[in-house]
Amino acid sequence: MDKLNLDKHISGQFNAEINFVRNQIMVMGGLVEQQLRDVIKAMATHDVELAQQVARRDNKVNSLEVKIDEECTRIIAKRQPAASDLRLIMAIVKTIADLERIGDVAKNVARMVENGLGKRSNISVASLETLGEHSVKMLHDVLDSFARMDDEAAFVVHREDEKLDKEYERLFRELMTYMMEDPRSIPNVLDALNAARCFERVGDRCQNIAEYVIYFVRGKDVRHLGTDEIAELL
Amino acid sequence: MDKLNLDKHISGQFNAEINFVRNQIMVMGGLVEQQLRDVIKAMATHDVELAQQVARRDNKVNSLEVKIDEECTRIIAKRQPAASDLRLIMAIVKTIADLERIGDVAKNVARMVENGLGKRSNISVASLETLGEHSVKMLHDVLDSFARMDDEAAFVVHREDEKLDKEYERLFRELMTYMMEDPRSIPNVLDALNAARCFERVGDRCQNIAEYVIYFVRGKDVRHLGTDEIAELL
Repeated sequence: MDKLNLDKHISGQFNAEINFVRNQIMVMGGLVEQQLRDVIKAMATHDVELAQQVARRDNKVNSLEVKIDEECTRIIAKRQPAASDLRLIMAIVKTIADLERIGDVAKNVARMVENGLGKRSNISVASLETLGEHSVKMLHDVLDSFARMDDEAAFVVHREDEKLDKEYERLFRELMTYMMEDPRSIPNVLDALNAARCFERVGDRCQNIAEYVIYFVRGKDVRHLGTDEIAELL
Repeated sequence: MDKLNLDKHISGQFNAEINFVRNQIMVMGGLVEQQLRDVIKAMATHDVELAQQVARRDNKVNSLEVKIDEECTRIIAKRQPAASDLRLIMAIVKTIADLERIGDVAKNVARMVENGLGKRSNISVASLETLGEHSVKMLHDVLDSFARMDDEAAFVVHREDEKLDKEYERLFRELMTYMMEDPRSIPNVLDALNAARCFERVGDRCQNIAEYVIYFVRGKDVRHLGTDEIAELL
């Protein structure tokens, strides 16, 4: 085998490994998205059994995180990637950490549903459902931008977080008035507030992932830049 | 220069670079610890000016994160570390992300102090102060374990988080009774609850860092193991 073929071979192997990891992250992302969808459904329909399934399935999300993380470290050690290959692996390592924490959100809300979130009180969970679905949409879109490594699409998700934050603030105020009108509702409303904050944080995590996509494509760390500065860069 | 000397030279350079990064992470950790201490002091003494200083200084924390992160990627690309060297760098990359988010906690609580946290109401901030100081103690101890790469000390911090969680729960219940007794206090108490949750999350972050220390020393990812399983490993 001459050198050229050897290089090709190594590069081919490397590509196969990278593609495997990229594929795994999509599996993990798909699972986390399903977890969120299921917990929102469980919340809206007071389905305790579905909530329990979500809580149990969180183990799978955790295992995928550990597995992908180990695979990334192995690739770095074995293939010694540089430049954009290394950026991709670092972006993956960071993305799985955020995905795992979105998985935790699903598990935490599932526990709340098990404990009667939205059932014991007269609070409508409709607004909470809308907020949750908005956060799932962001996750779906940012995973899509990750799959295609599309920095423009990632930036759209990045900007979307502002709308989610505003939606959360409106819900926060709405829930606060319930408490003031009927102090007996306080414990239940605090549960709902907690769930709302969980969904709001999913948006923050999606924003992080959007930043890693932009970092990979543009080679620039945009984590602490404002929206206008990122817009200018793209 | 014979091969042996060359190796020594390369290894010496590498060590210098690693030590530089380890030093930088201690600078970042020290700054974040100071930020937390200052914001607790600002909260306890209603010192808006100090709170503003904390909010402004968060930029420094963010810059350090980006700088250390870039340095780590540079070292991986240039030095192609393997085994424990690579584990150390991966542990550093993850640790700075958690430190940055503890920095965000300090900034967020600072904003709350600027908006009158603990001043406008008759709620005592003493319990909040105790919770905050407990979280600073955990940060201090986990940074210490990181500096010495002491897995046993890291595990002590890891276990401490359970106590912080219990303290948070007690405070949560205490604050809830205020709201039920006097609904007018609700907005202020919600602020205090928010701050309490922030400090509780500092504990979670410290637990993460403790896990990275154990990962580095033991070569095993303990992120999703229970306390008993980690205890058995050590």
